[in-house]
Amino acid sequence: MEDFKKRSRKKGLPPGTLVYIGEKRGDGVRISVIDYDSETLREKEAVHVEECFPFKMEKSTTWINVDGLHKKEILECLGKNYDLHPLTLEDIMNTHQRPKVEDFGNYLYIVLKMIYLHPGDSTIITEQVSLILGENFVMTFQEREGDVFDPIRQRIKEGKGSVRKMHADYLAYCLIDSIVDNYFSILERYDEQIDNLEDQLLGVPANSLLNRIYAIKREVISLRKAVWPLREVVSLLERLETRLIEKKTRAYLRDIYDHAIQVVDTVDTYREIISGMHDLYLSNVSNRMNEIMKILTIIATIFIPITFIAGIYGMNFEFMPEIHWKLGYPVVWGIMITMAALMLAYFRKNDWL
Amino acid sequence: MEDFKKRSRKKGLPPGTLVYIGEKRGDGVRISVIDYDSETLREKEAVHVEECFPFKMEKSTTWINVDGLHKKEILECLGKNYDLHPLTLEDIMNTHQRPKVEDFGNYLYIVLKMIYLHPGDSTIITEQVSLILGENFVMTFQEREGDVFDPIRQRIKEGKGSVRKMHADYLAYCLIDSIVDNYFSILERYDEQIDNLEDQLLGVPANSLLNRIYAIKREVISLRKAVWPLREVVSLLERLETRLIEKKTRAYLRDIYDHAIQVVDTVDTYREIISGMHDLYLSNVSNRMNEIMKILTIIATIFIPITFIAGIYGMNFEFMPEIHWKLGYPVVWGIMITMAALMLAYFRKNDWL
Amino acid sequence: MEDFKKRSRKKGLPPGTLVYIGEKRGDGVRISVIDYDSETLREKEAVHVEECFPFKMEKSTTWINVDGLHKKEILECLGKNYDLHPLTLEDIMNTHQRPKVEDFGNYLYIVLKMIYLHPGDSTIITEQVSLILGENFVMTFQEREGDVFDPIRQRIKEGKGSVRKMHADYLAYCLIDSIVDNYFSILERYDEQIDNLEDQLLGVPANSLLNRIYAIKREVISLRKAVWPLREVVSLLERLETRLIEKKTRAYLRDIYDHAIQVVDTVDTYREIISGMHDLYLSNVSNRMNEIMKILTIIATIFIPITFIAGIYGMNFEFMPEIHWKLGYPVVWGIMITMAALMLAYFRKNDWL
Amino acid sequence: MEDFKKRSRKKGLPPGTLVYIGEKRGDGVRISVIDYDSETLREKEAVHVEECFPFKMEKSTTWINVDGLHKKEILECLGKNYDLHPLTLEDIMNTHQRPKVEDFGNYLYIVLKMIYLHPGDSTIITEQVSLILGENFVMTFQEREGDVFDPIRQRIKEGKGSVRKMHADYLAYCLIDSIVDNYFSILERYDEQIDNLEDQLLGVPANSLLNRIYAIKREVISLRKAVWPLREVVSLLERLETRLIEKKTRAYLRDIYDHAIQVVDTVDTYREIISGMHDLYLSNVSNRMNEIMKILTIIATIFIPITFIAGIYGMNFEFMPEIHWKLGYPVVWGIMITMAALMLAYFRKNDWL
Amino acid sequence: MEDFKKRSRKKGLPPGTLVYIGEKRGDGVRISVIDYDSETLREKEAVHVEECFPFKMEKSTTWINVDGLHKKEILECLGKNYDLHPLTLEDIMNTHQRPKVEDFGNYLYIVLKMIYLHPGDSTIITEQVSLILGENFVMTFQEREGDVFDPIRQRIKEGKGSVRKMHADYLAYCLIDSIVDNYFSILERYDEQIDNLEDQLLGVPANSLLNRIYAIKREVISLRKAVWPLREVVSLLERLETRLIEKKTRAYLRDIYDHAIQVVDTVDTYREIISGMHDLYLSNVSNRMNEIMKILTIIATIFIPITFIAGIYGMNFEFMPEIHWKLGYPVVWGIMITMAALMLAYFRKNDWL
Repeated sequence: MEDFKKRSRKKGLPPGTLVYIGEKRGDGVRISVIDYDSETLREKEAVHVEECFPFKMEKSTTWINVDGLHKKEILECLGKNYDLHPLTLEDIMNTHQRPKVEDFGNYLYIVLKMIYLHPGDSTIITEQVSLILGENFVMTFQEREGDVFDPIRQRIKEGKGSVRKMHADYLAYCLIDSIVDNYFSILERYDEQIDNLEDQLLGVPANSLLNRIYAIKREVISLRKAVWPLREVVSLLERLETRLIEKKTRAYLRDIYDHAIQVVDTVDTYREIISGMHDLYLSNVSNRMNEIMKILTIIATIFIPITFIAGIYGMNFEFMPEIHWKLGYPVVWGIMITMAALMLAYFRKNDWL
Repeated sequence: MEDFKKRSRKKGLPPGTLVYIGEKRGDGVRISVIDYDSETLREKEAVHVEECFPFKMEKSTTWINVDGLHKKEILECLGKNYDLHPLTLEDIMNTHQRPKVEDFGNYLYIVLKMIYLHPGDSTIITEQVSLILGENFVMTFQEREGDVFDPIRQRIKEGKGSVRKMHADYLAYCLIDSIVDNYFSILERYDEQIDNLEDQLLGVPANSLLNRIYAIKREVISLRKAVWPLREVVSLLERLETRLIEKKTRAYLRDIYDHAIQVVDTVDTYREIISGMHDLYLSNVSNRMNEIMKILTIIATIFIPITFIAGIYGMNFEFMPEIHWKLGYPVVWGIMITMAALMLAYFRKNDWL
Repeated sequence: MEDFKKRSRKKGLPPGTLVYIGEKRGDGVRISVIDYDSETLREKEAVHVEECFPFKMEKSTTWINVDGLHKKEILECLGKNYDLHPLTLEDIMNTHQRPKVEDFGNYLYIVLKMIYLHPGDSTIITEQVSLILGENFVMTFQEREGDVFDPIRQRIKEGKGSVRKMHADYLAYCLIDSIVDNYFSILERYDEQIDNLEDQLLGVPANSLLNRIYAIKREVISLRKAVWPLREVVSLLERLETRLIEKKTRAYLRDIYDHAIQVVDTVDTYREIISGMHDLYLSNVSNRMNEIMKILTIIATIFIPITFIAGIYGMNFEFMPEIHWKLGYPVVWGIMITMAALMLAYFRKNDWL
Repeated sequence: MEDFKKRSRKKGLPPGTLVYIGEKRGDGVRISVIDYDSETLREKEAVHVEECFPFKMEKSTTWINVDGLHKKEILECLGKNYDLHPLTLEDIMNTHQRPKVEDFGNYLYIVLKMIYLHPGDSTIITEQVSLILGENFVMTFQEREGDVFDPIRQRIKEGKGSVRKMHADYLAYCLIDSIVDNYFSILERYDEQIDNLEDQLLGVPANSLLNRIYAIKREVISLRKAVWPLREVVSLLERLETRLIEKKTRAYLRDIYDHAIQVVDTVDTYREIISGMHDLYLSNVSNRMNEIMKILTIIATIFIPITFIAGIYGMNFEFMPEIHWKLGYPVVWGIMITMAALMLAYFRKNDWL
Repeated sequence: MEDFKKRSRKKGLPPGTLVYIGEKRGDGVRISVIDYDSETLREKEAVHVEECFPFKMEKSTTWINVDGLHKKEILECLGKNYDLHPLTLEDIMNTHQRPKVEDFGNYLYIVLKMIYLHPGDSTIITEQVSLILGENFVMTFQEREGDVFDPIRQRIKEGKGSVRKMHADYLAYCLIDSIVDNYFSILERYDEQIDNLEDQLLGVPANSLLNRIYAIKREVISLRKAVWPLREVVSLLERLETRLIEKKTRAYLRDIYDHAIQVVDTVDTYREIISGMHDLYLSNVSNRMNEIMKILTIIATIFIPITFIAGIYGMNFEFMPEIHWKLGYPVVWGIMITMAALMLAYFRKNDWL
């Protein structure tokens, strides 16, 4: 569940006020810069914010990555130098944004949710990534260190693929593509869990299964909320009339669009399947209850009448003629067995046995 | 549930007839005026309606706030001076409006629901706010004193943020933003309640839980009804072709639009989660019933047959050979124990134990 | 449920054939005329159809109201004089129309459902009203006498409001507004019923409650079918490009549009609430069943085993050593009480008591 | 359920191959022709296909009706003479089409489902009707003899209505109108069945009711599938830019559109009502189960404990002091009656009695 | 469930990298070429990729079919010669595409799912088919040998139908039509299974039925996911502004569109029917449970009280006057029979018997 407590910290402040509402993750703010064109490549790690500015003047593509959003001075400094709108800065720090894209003329502001498995303990990590695409630069803002962009860094350094030959818009595409690609790992994980649950459902369903179905249902609802706006964002990005995205890159964006739709479709299918599993579970419980009731009823309806007969001849009346008959006892046994047999025949006729 | 009794008081009256259909909250009508530009600031509290009129002539931005809607003379007086359409006046007094925005050319009429926690007992208060945005003035009409606008008053007085440097449209933006921001406090509250309910659901669910789930379901349906039109309102406001909203302010409106969508999304997610909780509750009840039935069945199917055997040898027939056997008693015990053991083995085989 | 038997009477007849398919309500057909402009007012009750025609020539606004649709000669006569399309006449008589608006160039044809509480026994009455808006006249066709237009007649006669100063389109607006306003009385009624049902649900739900919930569900489905197209009708009316509606009146139509949306929203909310009540009812039934089963199980599992023990010592074997022990009887009591206590402890541990 | 076996016969054949996939209904193919204008009328029954061709040259309106689709030579012959596209011929023979309208320039091709009650045994008959509207001719293709067009034939022969004064497009309108009108008879039938089921539901619901509810649910799903595309078809027909439909006729098409929407609306309402009935049935079953359980529980919890007490004093211990008390027997009766009374009081307190 | 494990192999690779993510089906890659115009026909089986290139220069229509996608050299070679975009090549190898159509200017890229019954064991086979439509060539890429195109090959060879007279776009149409036509075989299969399940449901429903209903539900969800985008694809194809599709062919594409809608409609109907079957199953289980409970209750409530009476007179009190009455025994029998009769009368009154 989202954490609105942090969100409401901002209540009443003037728009454009920078308040970081996420958790403070890690200590410092780590800025790294990669500047490249098809021939040259410069890379700087853990720099001061001022070291980024010289790159702005040059024609080469600059990628500035900021890990950690809790120091507003750094954002303000970047904002002033790169001419960012105050609302953009506010949104970067407000990590409960819905995925969206906004065109500010001189740059595009894109918010996405990066969802990936923690490399160590493979829990699911959800983090907001803000991406700013300008004329010859891309800025990415993340809540903490660790991301899904390493393969892209690798490609830039090694000059693999066409990233070095293209411009900032293609870099932005690569980054978004990488985020969307990671959704498939998450889907794969759910895939396994659902298969697993289904296998258990077809066996004897334990009570705990119900809570597990509920838990996964809940997670898929959350995932859906993060993923649903993606379609719209990528579609808008593809159709946007802006000089910041070259025609050549649009074909690639269409490709992401296809992936985004596939993710959304799959999540919707999961919802339907999980809801079907819940129904199946309930039906199984119902069936088992039915079977239990059947056994109880069979036992009870066979023995209750004959126990009654035994009770009759357990009475202590002085004048009970049957008691003194020589064949009384075996006759009563005969009656009892006949009654039980009739009952069993009735059950068999009704398909209960 | 809305109170249509009040609504139907108006039935049959000519349009434009002013009838206040809300509860009469508080006694008097309290008018306050703040007039400012980037340099000057005048503030008047609890004024007569006529005292507002001189501000109209001036270029500075005037914010007239009216608390209490039950005196129609005051509305009529304002309406005449500020050239408001009779339908606008009627709508201001009719506090069961759906959130909407209407363009009357010389002014925009905006209706919103202000939802906030009472600072004292933190109950949820829902109040209709009518907002009129004119050339150089903003009017707000509230049902009673107490609102969510204090931080904005503060900002105007202290000159914080850019509100003093901007015009009436920016003030209107600030007011709407402040209303929408408060929805997040309400969502936060529901967030807590839902988490709370979930914890209880995973333990032993009490019967009262059902009523609580129903109550929160009901509240979320109401909330949704208030919040759903918001999206449309803000979207319309952003796209409206009117000279009353400057281009600079539109970027801010887009920001509110994002928030509005987020609120609507979250409310929809809540509905889904609550409905899932209801299902989980029912499934839990079903499971417990199943378990209870199992125990009953185990006990009954073990003891009913052996009680029958005891009944047999309680019969008083004269000629029952077993009665006189020396080993009769222990043999019967043996038969009983064997039967019980067989039953238990059967249950274990069927995974009932 | 609608009465399609009447509808199918028309099957196979050529289009434009006038067949009244409603119930024949009341005896005669009653025509009344009100003709007015800002200065003069003429009113005629129970006139012959020919008496309406002279008004057509004059510039003043004429309102012709027809109660009773079963005489096709009258309709044909009006149709010829006011140049109405044969399909319009057919639709007026076919009282199972869906609410709609049609632009025939020289007039607009509007069909609405008038729903109101019978003033006497306050049952819900649904009646089709056909409204024809021409250059300087409005015609209304109702199935029987009695309607919701009396306040408008009053206003015209007394010159209250602006109706006398405006033209035929404003009169049409007033009539539609009056119909839509009456929906709120119906909603108010359902509001009460739903509140009432909810109170009963939270107490001990009687079986009859189920049928009442079903009945109200059914009524709301019907209401929804009548109300749903309203939105579209009013929206179309507002946007229609026709010289028959003046610009001044459109603002008023927008007002009806808001009301129509509110009605539709409320009906939808009712559906959701009623469906929630049904679920709550079922869950309550389930809960009570659970409790009943618990009591049965507790009683049975405590007494069945100890009754068995009593049965053992009721057996008549000759050689039962315990029988002759001095402490046999109290020891057996001790065993029984211990067993019952263990059972109770088990139930308490499982939160059943 | 549709019969896809026939459909798949066509698999792999080149498009335009004529294969009749419906049942062969009746023996021969029966062609009848009516040719008329406002003055003349010629009618031919059971003609050879070649006899139709001369009419093509004349200005009068020709209606060619073909009953039976299994002879492809006849279709090919008509296709060649009237210049029909191969796909049209293929679609005419493929009787599993979805209702649709296609504009081939020189003619419109319209597919509809004719649903009517068999005049004899009043079963529901569903048949595909293909309608081709050309410049001065209308062709209708039916699967077998018997249709809903007799009143139109009558009208043409007797010159009733305006059909003789209008052209081919008006004839097409009449035919479609007649098909749509017949849907109301079907709806009427369901109306009765639903009312009937509801009456039974409010009484003691038999088990067979469930299967009947399911059966009608199934039929309504099928009906909906046939009726749903109708709306689109008629709407398209009305808006189509083609010289084949005169402006005068379009008003009539709008009328059919209203009927089509009404049919679709009603079918949707039926679905909702039937689904509500299913819920009501289940709730009733649940309620009855509850009542049965209550009775079982009351009987069992009253008698099990006192039977235990009787069992106690049925034991044969030598040393049971109570046995020898003079008042033992009446005191035990007193204890039993007290226990039963307490139980009954408890049940009454919990509203079980 | 789709296999995302393979999908995630691609994560982090630059776009345009060719990685085959499907199963490696079969060993080699088999390329076959058919080149034809209305007069000539050349056919080559199992050729080297280079042998395809000469056909490119000629005006005749060339169909290149590739079975097996795991050798990226072949794709790269084809891509270079036919000027295919890197993303197209990537998509061909990524066999988890959603059906789509993309216009690359000089060619159209179409992805479809081919679903057909394996001719041997009639399991359902789902395979991705990529289709490239160029100026005078069509390329098809399949995952493995075996497809639904044999009838088309036949038609080309024998010159049946118009395929030899038309161009590449008509060939593409034939291929798509053949894929869509095969969906009907699958639907036919589900049709049978659903009819089968329904018959069983109306009899005594076995527990295993539930799992079968779930299994078919699950399959239909998957089928729907494959079929749903089809509508969009074919619709886009029909409306696409490209010189690659001639006007004559568009009429045929409209025909596929009708089929696609029919498939989607039918799948949706299946979903609704299966969901109805699940409900029916549950209701049947509920009904049977009810019946079982009734029998248990009848037996128990009749015998428990009279067994109690028998217990009373089994007590061993010394002073029990009834014991010594001459008529004691028959009177007790009378009481017992009366009680049982009253119970039975009560049950009959409540319609339980």
